[in-house]
Amino acid sequence: MSLKTISAQDAAALDKDLMDARLGGFSLDQLMELAGLSVSQAVYRVHPPSKGKNILVACGPGNNGGDGLVAARHLIHYGYKPTVYYPKEGKNELYQRLKTQLHNLSVPFISDFPTALQSSDLLIDAIFGFSFKGPLREPFASVISQMESTSVPVLSVDAPSSWEIESGPPPEGQPGAKFVPQTLISLTAAKPLVKWFTGGRHFLGGRFLTGSIAEKYGLELPEYPGIDQIVEVDVNGAGKL
Amino acid sequence: MSLKTISAQDAAALDKDLMDARLGGFSLDQLMELAGLSVSQAVYRVHPPSKGKNILVACGPGNNGGDGLVAARHLIHYGYKPTVYYPKEGKNELYQRLKTQLHNLSVPFISDFPTALQSSDLLIDAIFGFSFKGPLREPFASVISQMESTSVPVLSVDAPSSWEIESGPPPEGQPGAKFVPQTLISLTAAKPLVKWFTGGRHFLGGRFLTGSIAEKYGLELPEYPGIDQIVEVDVNGAGKL
Repeated sequence: MSLKTISAQDAAALDKDLMDARLGGFSLDQLMELAGLSVSQAVYRVHPPSKGKNILVACGPGNNGGDGLVAARHLIHYGYKPTVYYPKEGKNELYQRLKTQLHNLSVPFISDFPTALQSSDLLIDAIFGFSFKGPLREPFASVISQMESTSVPVLSVDAPSSWEIESGPPPEGQPGAKFVPQTLISLTAAKPLVKWFTGGRHFLGGRFLTGSIAEKYGLELPEYPGIDQIVEVDVNGAGKL
Repeated sequence: MSLKTISAQDAAALDKDLMDARLGGFSLDQLMELAGLSVSQAVYRVHPPSKGKNILVACGPGNNGGDGLVAARHLIHYGYKPTVYYPKEGKNELYQRLKTQLHNLSVPFISDFPTALQSSDLLIDAIFGFSFKGPLREPFASVISQMESTSVPVLSVDAPSSWEIESGPPPEGQPGAKFVPQTLISLTAAKPLVKWFTGGRHFLGGRFLTGSIAEKYGLELPEYPGIDQIVEVDVNGAGKL
């Protein structure tokens, strides 16, 4: 099974195509809704509410964080008790609306990450996605050090935060060098960093890709089962299990 | 089990609340994406692809038609072959983008409704929703007469088109007087017209309502199972089966 991954540059171009009025016709609202929905389905799959309802969602300032905010909303409707850590809020008005949606559902936003982590059953790492470029800055450097050493299972959205998209984990001694989430959900397509992913489960989300866009970027459209928004794939690739 | 329905006026006010920056924080893009997704899940439930993949989606000029366009997109990803009839296109730029998304998936838009109906396995009636006020105009009067007499099963979105939201089917002799879809999916809450619904199955969609908005309009939050975006309810009400 060939490994179909998409570079950071192509992933950005693909997103641009999806939102191009002619090529894709999607809005960021739509894409983020579907991305966040797929994240919530992956959480439900690996960690159903019976395994513990306290989900801590760590959100970064960009679209990866927005996916986390959407996922948190779906999770509360599934019966979870999500808590959000969102120390550097994105400026896009969409992020503000996603926050409002969570406030209206009484989802707590916390600032003390270590304390919240202690009482969590699962951590969603929605800090950085395919547009990450180091170096890490505070407060995220500390947060990632804690994710590295916690016994709480972690599900990373699109990329284990702190990893370089093309070259994987940072060098020995830096925060994130030993960080390996248990679960990874790649959005639209796996990134080259999956080569270094040694966690247990890998999902693909983003059931909206068209054949022509997949072809343009040399991707294969995965076969999603039934009405699922996610499909489980090889740990290190995008091939179907 | 009490019958919890929402009037046309309250349904409009509720939508406005959902899109209010403070009260709801949703965009129309998000709400329509989730509504159309729930419609697609209801189709999959009552008519899985094994029962026939040819789905004709009849779309009206407003938001009900937009829900149909979104549903058609999800259906093609589920393996169906949707065809869209959209004779009076809505002017909102969102509808144009939803059309583009379908064009990019090679979904045919047809103008000959009777011929398309003949080769369909299921018809989605996404013509009129809770803002419908008669009288019917062409081409929809003819389309509804055909829906009345066809042997193709029909799934109506939010309302059987031609029915008045508060008072149900139009008087004897008018198009729609004898129209009863096999399946109805009520969005957010059932409308008073469900009192006259004698079809087989009734679903509720819209898993994004908050407790405070439900309370404001005297609704009960339904218990959706698992990660489903729909829940099957009493044929004439919103109570859980």
